[in-house]
Amino acid sequence: MKVSARNTFAGSVTNITKGAVNAEVTLSLKGGIPLTAVVTNGAIDNLGLTTGMEAYAIIKASSIIIGTDLHDAKISARNIFCGTIVKVIEGPVNTEVDSDIGGGNTISAVITHDSATRLELKAGDHACALFKASSVIIGVI
Amino acid sequence: MKVSARNTFAGSVTNITKGAVNAEVTLSLKGGIPLTAVVTNGAIDNLGLTTGMEAYAIIKASSIIIGTDLHDAKISARNIFCGTIVKVIEGPVNTEVDSDIGGGNTISAVITHDSATRLELKAGDHACALFKASSVIIGVI
Amino acid sequence: MKVSARNTFAGSVTNITKGAVNAEVTLSLKGGIPLTAVVTNGAIDNLGLTTGMEAYAIIKASSIIIGTDLHDAKISARNIFCGTIVKVIEGPVNTEVDSDIGGGNTISAVITHDSATRLELKAGDHACALFKASSVIIGVI
Repeated sequence: MKVSARNTFAGSVTNITKGAVNAEVTLSLKGGIPLTAVVTNGAIDNLGLTTGMEAYAIIKASSIIIGTDLHDAKISARNIFCGTIVKVIEGPVNTEVDSDIGGGNTISAVITHDSATRLELKAGDHACALFKASSVIIGVI
Repeated sequence: MKVSARNTFAGSVTNITKGAVNAEVTLSLKGGIPLTAVVTNGAIDNLGLTTGMEAYAIIKASSIIIGTDLHDAKISARNIFCGTIVKVIEGPVNTEVDSDIGGGNTISAVITHDSATRLELKAGDHACALFKASSVIIGVI
Repeated sequence: MKVSARNTFAGSVTNITKGAVNAEVTLSLKGGIPLTAVVTNGAIDNLGLTTGMEAYAIIKASSIIIGTDLHDAKISARNIFCGTIVKVIEGPVNTEVDSDIGGGNTISAVITHDSATRLELKAGDHACALFKASSVIIGVI
């Protein structure tokens, strides 16, 4: 399977909490980084997903927000991965920002060109990638 | 009503499962293709949505992931529509990929330019469009 | 804290409804405009979010759909903010549309270039910005 989503992180399932419609799944990524996803109960059942299974988290670059000066951030987004910007690709409307978040992982975000300009993002800067649990798709092999 | 979202699919409501906050809605699209959406209970009440009603599903192109070689895919995204790529529009950051998924339906995805290059997507290729149930907006006429 | 998300609206929390996994949060923005968000229960707990607190809603431009002729719209998206288009920035794949929605607030949407062309969007036009409750991130200071 090959998918266009730029961000795929391997890990193992550490917890599943089911509700009436949705379920919250936590993964422990390589290096012990926790990641939280919300998927439907139907998806959990289809995948046969259980605690301890190997799985991967898929997130579209367009679902990711870049933040700086987040040390004092109080924000509902469950996933905040910080690191160093390695590449900025500018377009007329959007800009792609790729950051190294350690453990050999790179995370790609697509934000508006104006935001990239306003935040003065450039390679070498410290930055954080934020995304909601609901933006994550879970895959198993 | 006119909306910018590129993807609108007509169908009828086959099931509604309400939770405390969210509800899962399944539609049967033309040709019998099933589509799953998650919206809030409040939205269900506002729309007066019930089983058997005609409704349509709206999905932004940017919420859609393109996948290839998905025959063995085990992935939480509830909606996977496969077909043939009919058009690829390239930009410096993003690329639009339009696929014919049968029954006269076309689905448009906006992915990063790098992903389109990596997957070597071009008109005529077989490809699948994936999107989460939570990316779907329901409308009624 | 600085984030790339183009849309940040200040308000106060008017209601929180918790489910098993997700919670629905309503904010009253400046001018009394209601905004609905869905975040995880875990996020509510992490933030210590309670009714009456000041908070802000963050929405990525790419999560927003532009609609016209919405007076008769029956649509599940919980947030519909109408106003006047003040700027259109065109790219080869995407187009940014900025609208003044009153109270000193501007909302930015990134839609496909083809949609902007189809809807004939230009500065001065009346338009509405739609987004799902699940596209909102809540922050507190």
